[in-house]
Amino acid sequence: MKPDTTMVNAFDPTRTAGLAPEDRALIQRRGKALGPAYRLFYEEPLHLVRGEGVWLYDAQGNAWLDAYNNVASVGHSHPKVVEAISRQLATLNTHTRYLHEGVVSYAERLLATMPPEMGHMMFTCTGSEANDLALRIARSYTGRQGVIVTRLAYHGLTESVSEFSPSLGGFVQRGARVRLIDAPNALFVPPAEQGAKLAADLAKAIAEMRADGIEPAAFIVDTIFSSDGLYPDPAGFLKPAADLIRAEGGLFIADEVQPGFARTGDRFWGFQRHGITPDIVTMGKPMGNGFPVAGAAIRPEVVAEFGEKARYFNTFGGNPVASAAGMAVLDVIETEGLQQNAREIGAFLKQGLSEIVRGRDDIGDVRGAGLFLAMECVESQSTNKPNARLAGHIVNHLRRNGVLISATGPGANILKIRPPLVLQKPEATRFLEAISAAVAAA
Amino acid sequence: MKPDTTMVNAFDPTRTAGLAPEDRALIQRRGKALGPAYRLFYEEPLHLVRGEGVWLYDAQGNAWLDAYNNVASVGHSHPKVVEAISRQLATLNTHTRYLHEGVVSYAERLLATMPPEMGHMMFTCTGSEANDLALRIARSYTGRQGVIVTRLAYHGLTESVSEFSPSLGGFVQRGARVRLIDAPNALFVPPAEQGAKLAADLAKAIAEMRADGIEPAAFIVDTIFSSDGLYPDPAGFLKPAADLIRAEGGLFIADEVQPGFARTGDRFWGFQRHGITPDIVTMGKPMGNGFPVAGAAIRPEVVAEFGEKARYFNTFGGNPVASAAGMAVLDVIETEGLQQNAREIGAFLKQGLSEIVRGRDDIGDVRGAGLFLAMECVESQSTNKPNARLAGHIVNHLRRNGVLISATGPGANILKIRPPLVLQKPEATRFLEAISAAVAAA
Repeated sequence: MKPDTTMVNAFDPTRTAGLAPEDRALIQRRGKALGPAYRLFYEEPLHLVRGEGVWLYDAQGNAWLDAYNNVASVGHSHPKVVEAISRQLATLNTHTRYLHEGVVSYAERLLATMPPEMGHMMFTCTGSEANDLALRIARSYTGRQGVIVTRLAYHGLTESVSEFSPSLGGFVQRGARVRLIDAPNALFVPPAEQGAKLAADLAKAIAEMRADGIEPAAFIVDTIFSSDGLYPDPAGFLKPAADLIRAEGGLFIADEVQPGFARTGDRFWGFQRHGITPDIVTMGKPMGNGFPVAGAAIRPEVVAEFGEKARYFNTFGGNPVASAAGMAVLDVIETEGLQQNAREIGAFLKQGLSEIVRGRDDIGDVRGAGLFLAMECVESQSTNKPNARLAGHIVNHLRRNGVLISATGPGANILKIRPPLVLQKPEATRFLEAISAAVAAA
Repeated sequence: MKPDTTMVNAFDPTRTAGLAPEDRALIQRRGKALGPAYRLFYEEPLHLVRGEGVWLYDAQGNAWLDAYNNVASVGHSHPKVVEAISRQLATLNTHTRYLHEGVVSYAERLLATMPPEMGHMMFTCTGSEANDLALRIARSYTGRQGVIVTRLAYHGLTESVSEFSPSLGGFVQRGARVRLIDAPNALFVPPAEQGAKLAADLAKAIAEMRADGIEPAAFIVDTIFSSDGLYPDPAGFLKPAADLIRAEGGLFIADEVQPGFARTGDRFWGFQRHGITPDIVTMGKPMGNGFPVAGAAIRPEVVAEFGEKARYFNTFGGNPVASAAGMAVLDVIETEGLQQNAREIGAFLKQGLSEIVRGRDDIGDVRGAGLFLAMECVESQSTNKPNARLAGHIVNHLRRNGVLISATGPGANILKIRPPLVLQKPEATRFLEAISAAVAAA
C-alpha cells in the first residue's frame, strides 16, 4: 500500500522495520481487523495506554506532551468529567423520549452561551451528524439545495456532508449541488481585504450556482477555517459573507466543532469573534471531552416546520449520560477558568513562537487565537510557496522529542498546534523549547 | 401543536392537564429548549430517574418493568459495563489514529461472531452513521446508486439514510434513487410463500428501477423487519431475496441494529437465522448498552478501494472507551448466557401470550424470535384490518400498570415487546399478568 496522499502526517504501513515487535504485531492485527480505511499518525505510530491532563503515556512509561488533541479539551481523563459520566452511567441511561432533567438543563446552559436568537438545541452523537442535521434543516427551510464551503473544508463524513468536505480528497465525490470558494489566506491577502474578498468570492459562487439552476440553501464554514490552514484574523472578516448569504435567502451555518467551547480564548464561540448571529451553530469534538456528544443550536423559525413534520430522534443523542458529560465539561471550563487560560497561555505561546521564527526565511507566518495556533512553513518568504518537507520535519522531530502536534492546509505545510485548554506555563515553556529545537535542527 | 401522526404512542403536548406540576414545568422548559422535533412517549410521559436491570424508576420511587428498551440490552446500569467504561474513562480516551489494543481486540471479537467472509470491522457512533457508511461503500464499490428497502423501513436519520427510511413519514423526501417493496406479512401471506414473494417483489423493483435508468447498488433490510411490524419467520425466507440482489450485482446489507447481539435467542445475528452471508452487516443500539457505539462488518473486497482512497475517520468511533463498552457488553452476554436466556424466556413469553389471546377475535397474531415479540391487534380475524385503538389501549393500560411497551407497523396496531435480555421468569410472569389484564379490559 502506498502512503496516504490525502492525509497529512499519516503512517506508511509498509514501513514497520524500525518498530518494536509488539507494535508491529498490533499494527498487523489492526490492519487485518479494521481494514484499509484506518490510518495511524506519524512516521512511527504512538502506542498510548494512559492520559492525564496535557500528558499522554505509552506502554513503556514515556510521557508525551499533547499539543494536538482538541477532543480531550479540559484535559485527558479529567476526574470531574469521569466522575459525572460514571455516576450517571450507574444511575440511568435511557433516551429523550422519557422526561429527564439532564438534557433540558444542558440545552438551557448551552443556549445561555449564545445570542438569544439561538433558541433551540438539538443533540446528536457526532459533529458529522450535527452538520448533516443542519443541512437537512437548511434544505427543508429554504426549499433550496445549494451549499457553499471553502476549498479545503472538512465538515464530516456522512454521505451528504462528505460531498462538501473537499479535504477528504478527490475520490470522495463533490456533490453537484456544492460550490467551493477560496478560504481566507494570511500570506497572499492583506488582512483588511479578507472580509471583502470572502464576500465577493461567495457572491460569485452564488451567481455561478444560480446559472446552473441551483439556489443557495447555505454557506457553511468552520469559523476558524482549521482544515484550510487556520485563519482567525482579523476578527470580523466573516461578517460580510454571513450577511450576504442571508440577504440572498440562504442560511449561515457556523461549524463550531473546532473553535467552539472557549478554545479561541477571547470568546466562547468562534462566530462571536466575528460579530455574527448564525442561523445554525453546529458543535462536537470537545463537547463531552471524548464522550460522543454533539449537536446544533438553531433559530426557532428555521426548525419550526422540520421539527413538527420530520421529527428527529437520535437514539443516544442527548441521553442522560451524554448530557451529564457535556454539563461536566461546561462546569470545568467555568470553574477552572479555561477560556481565560486559553487566552493567556495562547498569547504566551504565540509570542514565543514569533520569537523562535524571527529571522527565519522559511516560516511565512505565525497566527492563531487562544490555544489554536498555526505556523506556516514556506520555501522562502519571497515566494511563500508551501514547504511540506519542513512541516513534516518539525512534526516528527517534536514527536521524537515527546511533543505531539500535526500539520494541515492545502500544502500540508501549516503546523497545527491545538493543546488541551488546561495547558499551563511550564508545559507551554517546554513546548516552546521543543519546537525551538525542531526548527533549529531543520 | 397537533399530535404526531407519524409516531406511534407519542405524547400530545397540548394535553398536560392531568400531569404533576413539576412534570408540566419540565415539559414546558423542554419544549422551549429543545424545540418541536423532540417527542415524548405515552399519553402521560414518564419522568425517569433511575434504572437497574429490567426496572426503571420515576422520581416518586414507582417501578416500571421495562419490556420495550433494547438499548440497555444487558440491563439498565449493568455494573460490569459501568465499571468497564468508568475504568477506561479514567485511564485513556483518545482515538483510532494512535495504536491501542482495545479497538483491535474488540473488532476481532465481533468478527469472530460472524461468517469468516466478514473480514473487517469499522466503527461509528450511531446506527445511522453505520448505515450511511454502508451506503457510501456500496455506492463506491458497485458504481451504482439505487437502494431498495421495505415499505416502512427505518435505517436512520442522516440525509442520505432518511431518504430510505420511509417510516419517518411523508414530509421526509424519499430519494429518487430509492424504491420500496412490501415487507413480509404474517396475516396475508402464507409462511411458505414469504421467501418467494419477497424475492419476486425485489425483482420487480429492480426492473422498474432499471427502466428509470438506475442500477441497484444495494438491498438493505432490518433482518427482523421491526418498523414494518416484526417478521422473523419462517427462518430462511430472506435468502432468495439476498441471493437475488447479489446475482444482480448489488450488495445485500443486513441492518442488525434491532435483531443483533443475541436478541433473537436462536442466533447471535438476525441474518444467521436466514442462512445468509451479507456483504455488509450494520449494528448499533445494544452494542454499548447505551454508550454510543455502532459499526459495520464488511467483506474485505467490498471496502478495499473505498478504504484506501476515501479513508474513514470517525472522531469518537472505536475510541478506547467505546471499545471497552462494547467489549463489556459481549462479556456480559457470554458470561450471563443471555442468548440462551433470550431463547428460553422469549419462548415462555410467546407461549404465555398465545394463551392470553386464545379465543379473541381481535388479536390476529402472536409472533417473535427470542426476546423480540409482537402481537397484532385487528378489527376481527375475518378482515384482519389494523386496530390501532386496541393497541393504544393496551400500551397505555400497561403503562398505568407499571409495564412499558410500545406499538409499531403501518397500522400502528402491532405491539412491540422487546425487554432487556436479562428478563427472568418472575418478571416475565408479571408481564404476562399485566398484559392479560390489559387485554381483558379492552
